[in-house]
Amino acid sequence: KKSFRVVVLPGDGIGPEVTSEAVRVLEVISAVSPDIEIKLESHQFGGCAIDSVGEPLPASTLKACQEADAILMGSIGGPKWGVNSKVRPEQGLLALRKALGLYANIRPANFASNSLLANSPLKPTVAEGVDIIVVRELIGGVYFGARKELGTGPDEDSAWDTMVYSIPEVQRITRVAAQIALQANPPLAIHSIDKANVLASSRLWRKVVTETLQAEYPQLALDHHLVDSASMLIVANPRKLNGVILTENLFGDILSDESSVIPGSLGLLPSASLAGAPSVADALDPGFKPTSGLYEPIHGSAPDIAGKGIANPIGTILSAAMLLRYSLGLEKYAKAIEEAVRKVLDDKAAGGHELRTADLGGSVKTREMGDKIVETL
Amino acid sequence: KKSFRVVVLPGDGIGPEVTSEAVRVLEVISAVSPDIEIKLESHQFGGCAIDSVGEPLPASTLKACQEADAILMGSIGGPKWGVNSKVRPEQGLLALRKALGLYANIRPANFASNSLLANSPLKPTVAEGVDIIVVRELIGGVYFGARKELGTGPDEDSAWDTMVYSIPEVQRITRVAAQIALQANPPLAIHSIDKANVLASSRLWRKVVTETLQAEYPQLALDHHLVDSASMLIVANPRKLNGVILTENLFGDILSDESSVIPGSLGLLPSASLAGAPSVADALDPGFKPTSGLYEPIHGSAPDIAGKGIANPIGTILSAAMLLRYSLGLEKYAKAIEEAVRKVLDDKAAGGHELRTADLGGSVKTREMGDKIVETL
Ligand SMILES: CC(C)[C@H](C(=O)O)[C@@H](O)C(=O)O
Ligand SMILES: CC(C)[C@H](C(=O)O)[C@@H](O)C(=O)O
Repeated sequence: KKSFRVVVLPGDGIGPEVTSEAVRVLEVISAVSPDIEIKLESHQFGGCAIDSVGEPLPASTLKACQEADAILMGSIGGPKWGVNSKVRPEQGLLALRKALGLYANIRPANFASNSLLANSPLKPTVAEGVDIIVVRELIGGVYFGARKELGTGPDEDSAWDTMVYSIPEVQRITRVAAQIALQANPPLAIHSIDKANVLASSRLWRKVVTETLQAEYPQLALDHHLVDSASMLIVANPRKLNGVILTENLFGDILSDESSVIPGSLGLLPSASLAGAPSVADALDPGFKPTSGLYEPIHGSAPDIAGKGIANPIGTILSAAMLLRYSLGLEKYAKAIEEAVRKVLDDKAAGGHELRTADLGGSVKTREMGDKIVETL
Repeated sequence: KKSFRVVVLPGDGIGPEVTSEAVRVLEVISAVSPDIEIKLESHQFGGCAIDSVGEPLPASTLKACQEADAILMGSIGGPKWGVNSKVRPEQGLLALRKALGLYANIRPANFASNSLLANSPLKPTVAEGVDIIVVRELIGGVYFGARKELGTGPDEDSAWDTMVYSIPEVQRITRVAAQIALQANPPLAIHSIDKANVLASSRLWRKVVTETLQAEYPQLALDHHLVDSASMLIVANPRKLNGVILTENLFGDILSDESSVIPGSLGLLPSASLAGAPSVADALDPGFKPTSGLYEPIHGSAPDIAGKGIANPIGTILSAAMLLRYSLGLEKYAKAIEEAVRKVLDDKAAGGHELRTADLGGSVKTREMGDKIVETL
C-alpha cells in the first residue's frame, strides 16, 4: 500500500468548516482504495496561529508542511488581523509559498456543472463551455524584485518596484504549464500572456516560453496575447482562451481573479500552488515523480458567515481533487471527486441532486453538501 | 467669436473613413454656433506617414499638433508595418503622447444607448447602468521606467523593468480625475486602484491620491481597490465601480480594455489623452483654462474592413464630443452630440432611429450613420 502524508491547515473564518468536508472526502478515498492510504494531520496557520503563538506560520507548522506530500488549506485572515496590524495572516502565506518554493499557481475557471451556467455574470452563450486553467508564476516578478519605498533613498519623493525574470524562472513555469496541458487528452493549447510591446521582462518571457515549448514540447499549440487584449477576451469571448493561460506573477494575479468570476461563485473554485512540474504518470507507475503543493479554495475567510455552517465547501473539495491529481498522481480519484461534485450540483432535470448553498442562492448547509458528495462518491 | 484650431490625424485603415464623419459633426457645430468657430486641418500620421516620408510622426505633424487646441485622431497601424518592421506606427503614437505631455488617458465605458444592452457579453441585469470613466496615467510607471533587456548588462540571463512613480506625477493625474468627477452633477465617486499590499509604487500611489483629494477635493467620495479585486468587480458587478476609476499606466491599460468590452462593441467607444486637468468652466466663461488633448476611438485600424465604408464612426464622433468637453470647454455641444448619437442608436420602440453598423449586427454604412447623426444634431 502506497502511503501519503497530507497536512491540513484549516485557518480562520470559514476555513475549518470547509476543510473538514474536504478531509472527509479524502478519508473516504483512503478507506475505499485498496492500494493507497492518505494520512491527514492538522496544524495551526494564519490568524489563529497569531493568536496562540504570535506568528502566522509557526516553525512546527512549516516543518510539517516541508515533510508532507501535500498541504490542504482552508482560508486565512479576518478583521481581527487587519491591514494595520503588525503581524498579518497573509505574511504567513507569502512566507510559506517562498519557503516551499511554490512557484506555480494553478487556477482553473470552469463550470463544475452546466446547471450553474445561469449564475455567471456573462451571458450563457458567452460563458458556456469556458474551460481555462491559469498557470501563474508565483514567487518571481514584481512581487519579489528590488523595491524602494517613498521617503527612503536619494530620490525620496519617488517609489519603485522591479519586475524581473531570469531564463530559468520562465523555463520552469513553462514546463509546469506544458505538463498540465499534457494531462488532458487531447493536450490543451497554451496561451502565453505578456506585454512584450513595452516590457523587457515580457520580451524575455515570450522568447523563453517559445523556445522552451519548441524544444521540449513541440506537440503543444502555443499563441501569445498582450495582457490588455487578454483581459478583454476573458470577458468578450473567453472560450478563445480555453486551455492553459501561462503568465507571470502580476498579470496572473489579475487575470486569474478576472476569469474566476465567470463560473458565478468564488465558492466553487479550487487552486494549487506547486513546487515542481506535475508528473503525468500515475502514482503507482514506476515513472511517477511526486510534486509537493499547497491546495486551497480561491475564496477568502468570509468572516460574515463564519461559524454558521453555510459556506460552500466545493472549492475546498475540488482543491482536494487537484491535490490527488498533481501531488499524489491519483487522477482517477481526482476525476471521481469532480464527477461527484457535478452530480450533486446538476439540476434534477439533468439527473443530479441540485444542491445549492447560500452563495448559489440556495439554503443547503456546508455539512449537507459534504454528506451528499461523500455519499455520491 | 472664439476660434479653435483642431488638427485631424486620419491615419491608416478605417481611420480616414471614421474621422471624416467626426469632422462633419465638428463642422456642423462650428457652422451653427453663433459664438465659436472650429478650424480643422489634416496632417499625416502613422503608417501612411511612414510610407510617404519614412517616419510615423513627421516634424510638420508634430509642430501642427503642438500649436493646436486639440487633436482628433482616427487609427493607425496595419499588417504592412508589422511587429518586425524597423519603424512602426505605434512608435509615433508613444512619441506624440510623450512630446505633448499627454499624461492623462480618459476612457469612458458606458452605453451610448440602452438599446445596445443586449450586445454586451454581460447579462443585461449586470451590464445595465454601467457608467465608468477610467482615468489612466499615461506617460509614467513601468512604461517609462529604466529597463534592462535580456542579453545585456552584468546579469545577462535576466531582464527587468522599473515601475516608478513620483509624488508630483500622482498628484497631477489625481487632479485630472477630480476635475472630471466634478464635471458631472452630482460629482462622481473616485475609485483608486493599486496593489498596495505588494508594491512600493502602489503604496506611494495610495498615499498621494488620498492626501491630494483630502486636501484639494474633500467633497469627492474616494475608495481604494486592489487591482486583482477590481478586475473581478468589472465582470461580476461593474456598477460598483460607476464613477471614475483612477489608476497607473499598466493597471489602466488592462482595466480600461477590460471595461471597454462591456458595451458590446469597441466601435462605440471614444478616448481622450490630456496634457492637463480639464477646466470645469465653459469656454466663454472668464475662468476657462484650455487643456490640449488627443482624441481617438479605442478601436484599431481594422485592415480587414478598411475602404469598405462599413466601419462604425461612433467611437470617433464621441471622441469629438470629448474634445469639445475637455479641450474646448463646450459642454453643451458635447452633450448635444451624445444625445444625437443616442437617438440614432435607440430602438424604434424607444423613439430612436435604430441604426446598426456591421459591428452591431446591422448593415448601415459609415456614411449613413454620419448623415443621420448630423441630421439629428
Ligand atoms: C494576498 C496577496 C498578496 C495575494 C497575491 O497577490 O498574490 C493574493 O491576491 C493571491 O492572489 O493569492
Ligand atoms: C500600443 C500600446 C503600447 C498601447 C499601450 O499599452 O499604452 C495601447 O495598448 C494603448 O492602450 O493605447
